[in-house]
Formats: sequence, C-alpha cells, structure tokens
Amino acid sequence: MLDKAIIQQLQQIVGADYLTTEPADLTCYAFDATQRRYLPDVVVYPHNAAEIAEILKLANAKRIPVVPRGSGSGFSGGSLPIEGGIELVLRRMDRILEIDEENMIAVVEPGVVTETFQKAVEAHGLFYPPDPASLKFSSMGGNVAECAGGPRCVKYGVTRDYILGLEVVTPTGDIINTGGRTMKGVVGYDLTRLFVGSEGTLGVVTQIIVKLIPKPAAVKTMLITFDSIRGASQAVSHIVLGRIIPTTLEFMDSTSLDVVRKATNIVIPEQVKAVLVVEVDGEPELLEKQAQQILTIVQPFGVVDTKIAQNKAESDDIWKLRRSISPSLRTVNPNKFNEDICVPRSRIPDMIVALEKISSEVGVPIINFGHAGDGNIHVNVMVDLATPGMDEKVERALRAIFEATLELGGTISGEHGIGITKAPYLRMELKDKVIDYMRIIKRALDPNNILNPGKIFGTDGGQ
Amino acid sequence: MLDKAIIQQLQQIVGADYLTTEPADLTCYAFDATQRRYLPDVVVYPHNAAEIAEILKLANAKRIPVVPRGSGSGFSGGSLPIEGGIELVLRRMDRILEIDEENMIAVVEPGVVTETFQKAVEAHGLFYPPDPASLKFSSMGGNVAECAGGPRCVKYGVTRDYILGLEVVTPTGDIINTGGRTMKGVVGYDLTRLFVGSEGTLGVVTQIIVKLIPKPAAVKTMLITFDSIRGASQAVSHIVLGRIIPTTLEFMDSTSLDVVRKATNIVIPEQVKAVLVVEVDGEPELLEKQAQQILTIVQPFGVVDTKIAQNKAESDDIWKLRRSISPSLRTVNPNKFNEDICVPRSRIPDMIVALEKISSEVGVPIINFGHAGDGNIHVNVMVDLATPGMDEKVERALRAIFEATLELGGTISGEHGIGITKAPYLRMELKDKVIDYMRIIKRALDPNNILNPGKIFGTDGGQ
Repeated sequence: MLDKAIIQQLQQIVGADYLTTEPADLTCYAFDATQRRYLPDVVVYPHNAAEIAEILKLANAKRIPVVPRGSGSGFSGGSLPIEGGIELVLRRMDRILEIDEENMIAVVEPGVVTETFQKAVEAHGLFYPPDPASLKFSSMGGNVAECAGGPRCVKYGVTRDYILGLEVVTPTGDIINTGGRTMKGVVGYDLTRLFVGSEGTLGVVTQIIVKLIPKPAAVKTMLITFDSIRGASQAVSHIVLGRIIPTTLEFMDSTSLDVVRKATNIVIPEQVKAVLVVEVDGEPELLEKQAQQILTIVQPFGVVDTKIAQNKAESDDIWKLRRSISPSLRTVNPNKFNEDICVPRSRIPDMIVALEKISSEVGVPIINFGHAGDGNIHVNVMVDLATPGMDEKVERALRAIFEATLELGGTISGEHGIGITKAPYLRMELKDKVIDYMRIIKRALDPNNILNPGKIFGTDGGQ
Repeated sequence: MLDKAIIQQLQQIVGADYLTTEPADLTCYAFDATQRRYLPDVVVYPHNAAEIAEILKLANAKRIPVVPRGSGSGFSGGSLPIEGGIELVLRRMDRILEIDEENMIAVVEPGVVTETFQKAVEAHGLFYPPDPASLKFSSMGGNVAECAGGPRCVKYGVTRDYILGLEVVTPTGDIINTGGRTMKGVVGYDLTRLFVGSEGTLGVVTQIIVKLIPKPAAVKTMLITFDSIRGASQAVSHIVLGRIIPTTLEFMDSTSLDVVRKATNIVIPEQVKAVLVVEVDGEPELLEKQAQQILTIVQPFGVVDTKIAQNKAESDDIWKLRRSISPSLRTVNPNKFNEDICVPRSRIPDMIVALEKISSEVGVPIINFGHAGDGNIHVNVMVDLATPGMDEKVERALRAIFEATLELGGTISGEHGIGITKAPYLRMELKDKVIDYMRIIKRALDPNNILNPGKIFGTDGGQ
C-alpha cells in the first residue's frame, strides 16, 4: 500500500481524474495475455512526457516500482506490476502526431493501436510492416518495448528495423531524445535500439519516429498442403534457396491441423499433414509468375494440393484456415503455454521432430504453427492445470523445448520477450557474463531499480 | 613509452612475430583517412579473441589505452591512437568462417575486407548491401564499428540492419556473444546494436554474424541531368512520392560538376547544373518499366537530358562521372574537410542553398555530392591550410554547416561517426543529458576508460 501523501502527489501530477486506487479499477490492470495476476497499488493515466518524468522522480525518491503499460496484450508479463506500485497506463497518449509522405516517416505516441497506425499510413500509400497477431489491440509503445514481429517480418524485418528515433523518459526522470528523422545517423551510441526490446525496463517511450516504406502494389496468397512436415520444411528452404522471399511463409503442422479438424467445420483431407500459407507482394505483373515459380519449386516435396487465391474472398478463405488455430486451441485443454521459439529456418524439421518426441515423452499435447520463413515457431503446450502434477509436467516440457531450441542454434524468444514468463529460463540461453553486462546497463540507467523491476532478469538476487 | 616489461607481456600473448615497436612500423599506424597523425607505443596483431581478452586485461591492470584498428580507412579518426598505447590491428583475423545459403547468413572475422566478403556471398547468389565508398579496403569490423552506409542504403538499409550477432571482447577482457543466428530474437537487451556504431569504444568485435538477402536479378542505371539543383531535388522527392525506391539515388551539384569539368576530360554541357545517377534493381522485366516511370516523373523538373544504360559499358560510363568527383577534389585545393551530414530528403534543396551561402560568406569552396535518396550529403570544404587564417575559416564554415543541418532536422554524421573529427561539435546535436547517458554506459562497460579513449565524447573532462 502506498502512503496517502504519495497518492496525493501523484494526483497533483496527473490530475484527480487520471488516477485510481479503486479495487475494481486495479483489478482491470492486474492481468495481461499471460493471465497471471498482480495488483498495482495505484493506476495513473499520464498524458505527456513531463508528467511521466515527475512520476518517475517521485518514484525514485520514494523507491516505488513503476510499470509502463500499453494495451496489456503481451505474452511475457512485461506490463504486470509484480511488485505492486504505480501502473503507468499510456492509453491517453494515443495521437498520430505526423505522417510525412515525402520523407516517409511518421511520429506517434506510444498509446496508438498498431492497426490504427497501419491503416492511417496506408491511406497515404505507405506501409508499416510489423504485424504481431495482436495488432488490433496492441499499442505501438508495447510493440517498441517488446520489439514485436509477425508474419510479414520474414520479408520486411521486425519493429526495430522501423524505429528511427524515440523520446524517452529515463528511470530517473530525464526526458531525452534518441536518433532522429533521418534514414542514416551515427552520432554517438545507438540508444534508440537499446530501448527497443528493453521491455519497459530502461525507460518509458513517449514518442516514436517511425520509418515507413511504400505500400506494395498487390499481394497474392497461396495455400500449399503437404503429406509431411518435413516436406513442407524442405519446401520452405527451397523457396528461399530459389531466392524468393515471400511476404509471409506461415506453416501449420499435423498437430494444429488435427485441432482445426476437430474444432471447426473446415475440411482438411486426412493425407494432409502440413500446410503452408504463402504470400508474395509487389508489382502485380510479377506476382503470378512468382506464385507459379513457388509451386514449381515445392512440387518434389510431397505436395497434396495447391491453390492460388484469385481474389480477396479466396485469400480470406486461406487465411481463415491459418487463423482458426489460435481460437481452436482451447478445445484441446484449458491452459495454454505459448512459447515463441525461433531456430535457423533450415532446422524447423528437426525442431518439429524434437517437439513430437517431447510431447510423447512428457505426455502433454504440443501444437505447433507459426512463421516458417524465419524459423519462428509458436509452440503451444496445452494442458489442464487442474490435473495433479501437471505443473511439473509443463515445466519439464518447456525446459526440454528450450534445450532442443538452443541445441539447434535457436533462441527461446523470437517475438514475445522474456518478461516474467521466460525469466526462469534466461540462463539457458545467455551466459552469466552476458547477463552481467545487461545488468550493468540496467543499474547504470536505473540505479534504484524502480522501473519495471523483476522483469527479464527475475528477482533472484535483486537487479 | 611503455615499460619493457609490458612489451614482453604483450609478446607472450601474441608471439614475438606479431608485435612491433619499430618507429617505421609505428608510423604506418599513425594515420587514417583523416590524415591526422598520432603514434602508438606498440602495434600488436592478435589472431583470436582469447589473445585480445588477455591484452585488454593487461591494459586494464596497467591503465594503457587500447585502440582497435581495421583498415584505417575511417573519416573520423576512430582508429587513431590519440593517447598512444596499444594499437590493436585486426588484419590477421580475416577469415570468412561460414556462408550458409539455406539460412542466408554468414559468419566473418573483423579483418575481412568488405568487397572480398561481398564477392564471396555473391558467388552463392547472395547479397550484402552496405557499400561504403571505401569497400575495396575497409574491413567488416570497421564497418560494424562505424555503422557504415553507402549509396545502396537508401533501398537496403545500413550496416546495423545486417548484423544479427557478434562475438565481442569487452573493455575489461570478457569474451561475450550477443544476438545469434536467427532472424528474430528478443532475449534481453539488444547489445548487438549497442556495439554496432560504438566506434570501438565499448568492445572489440571478433566475430560477426551477418544477415544476407538474395542478390537482385538485374540492375539498370540511369543518368538524368538538370538545369538546377532544386529541380534535381524535387525530382528525387517525386520519385519517392511515386512509391519507387531506387537502389541508389546519387546526386552531384553544380560545384562538383565544375570540379569534374576542370579536372577531367568528361564533357558536361554548361546548362547542366545538377546530375542524378539512379539505379533500380530487381526482376529484369520490371526494370525497363520502372526506369521509364522515373523518367516520366522527373520531366517537369528542368531535365536537360536523360540516358538509360543499355549495357555494362554504358552503366560504367555513368558511374565514371559520379566516381570522378572524389579524385578531382584535390585539384581545387590540397586540404579536404569531408563532412557526411544527413537531412530529411525533402530538405536537400534548402541545405544546398545554405551551403552556397556559407561558401560565399566564409569565402571557401564547398563541393557537394552524395546520396540524395536518404538525404546524406557529402560536403567537402576544400582549402589550402597553408593560407594564413584558413584554420579559422574552416572552423567557421563547419560550424555554420552543422548549424544549418540541425536547423533542417538533420544530423551531423550519417555514415562516418564522431571519432575525434566531430567530437568538438557533438554538443551541437546532442543535449547534455543524452551525452550523459551515453557516458554512463561507457563508464559502466569500461570503468578504467582504456578502450579507444577520447573518441566520440572528446577529452574535455575525462570520460
């Protein structure tokens, strides 16, 4: 519980209308997509960097944890107030400040919803590629904090590749600007990219300068079904070896197809054991040719059927299959452990074999789909935690999954970040020395460890 | 002068054959492309990270400056031993360790020459886009340290966009690995991009994991001449507004055309006051169409003549014009101050006007050319320093150039870094608070300030 005096000081900073300590309100901010629950002591809704700076100065003086929050759609607990304190909700800072067509940049506040931003720039013929699955509700600030990805990243890169500059309130309450409005810039250290992906632990992003590109003239969607996941994976490798980088290269393995078969009325022939959804974009006259090239390349790898969408409706139909997995997962079991591992793309078949082995050895269903083009697999361990001993099984499965990932030269998080859900596994991937260097930076910028404490590095032994 | 005992310890680390204190040898490493001169006390040629770690531990114990050096082709003095000490020459570490076609990555040591690397990956149908003008001799490690750019970056991005992971020896002698071999990865802070562009002040890069893309199938080169620089700049803006991102969009203004007219036998009609060299790349069947689109777009802006190269010889001819500037500059005056400012591309005409004004007000020739597509202008103040009072004029011109750049929303360095040449101007661009944060990071990683001291932040008041 925070002192009444501190609540009053916070009220003076943000205004009485923009602060709450009502239990019902606090409960709304106790969750994110991880479904873990931690109550903040107070929720504030600042509307500019100056207010945030004052809040952070107060928090430093009084040693109160401050946790920035966008839309709370994160999968690793980045916005959860695990040590209580002040929940800093950025939803009032949701303006698109500028879209500059000639220089192809935009300036936004952190609370802008990703899809809202994408539609706004597309109205100018421009394009912001990162497309996390949560884009309908995730915020640009959250995307920056986690370095969000998505299906299109195989061709276009991730969030960090589109951030030119930031306004950041540092943990000690300084307002600083990093980077700028130019495409090139090498003046001093790259603080911009240090803040991108730092999961709200190094600063609160209050403005974002975004690089845009021209919107592709056209898109073509294809569905290719295979009789084995190995065939589908080889097809992915050969598409890339054929020097074609599709916009998206999504896959579903037999575990996810089975789920969709059971949970929906979508008909998938029994001999289909894996599916690729492939999109190419660019000049219309090239797309049909590229689509045909892709179909030729994949033929030797056990193709069951192929379909090139001829219009929007057919394309939507193909995506309906891919998008039906996530909502279908809960029909398997009520509790989902969704891990976003990433391996070099050539190792996907080995990873799928490893996942099948872990599933059968540990005795838990594991459903796999994701971004084959960049080796980013969404691995869903689906269980009922009410079953006695299931916690321990999940833990065993996750460790085995991460071990296999790292053995194949991969990483335990491609898109979601570490937060609290992956903090216990951080040392499986990073050597102690590397973690030491990250903590040196954290300590240097946040000497009192008040900004989003306990994230990434866990709570073992303080900062 | 270093103790004999220290020299002996260094000899034990690298072997007697790979260390020199001979004055003639030291002189070879006293220079870089800035033509400033600082003698090291000793030059060592380590051949792996372990040796470098030992050298840095010794240097920490004895508080000896250590300066990493690739090819010494930098324009900001990053590799100059301004406080003497140990010059760490990385040329023995010049292996391409791996080119992985299927995953489109490569692993290289820092001493590999950029062009050597590019040719090696192109033999596999792959492509490493960053193309600094020095690519025939600059090293990959130097490119990483400075975050090198080049003409193709307007379409493909700069060095940082192609670095997936690093092996780094930290200032205190730890060997750490950052990033990895996957396209996505968000485990902990982005140390990789913190090291990229840090000018050899935060660590010595000993291995580089590089992201590659497919080599474009074809390239088409165009020359477009204009009757004014404003017309040429408007043409650049309209090409981009037309949603075409050429591979390169190089410009020369009337000052550089005059130099070429005088110094070479290349015939440039008198009414030509600005030139664009434009390249587009991609699928061959699209390029002619794109080239024609570009020629249509630029027509209203005072075009004198246009030429689309029909073969390699014609393309080479066009590039000969662009490449003739640099060697011609010395015919103007013997001393060159080459500044790589960058402004939002729409501000190029305003910047050129400002440069003409500064040139006439200060009374020094200023020759401009560069990368119009990303607003990166190479501004060359050409003087004879033997003229009394010229130092002061140069200083006045440079300050005025940087002031104009910053007023237009630009940056004082797009490609070359700060090093020592731009350190006196750092505070014109970055607020004290931002510099403070950079120094906090420097101090945290290099507590004894032994790695490349005096760079970026200058020597005013220590670190």
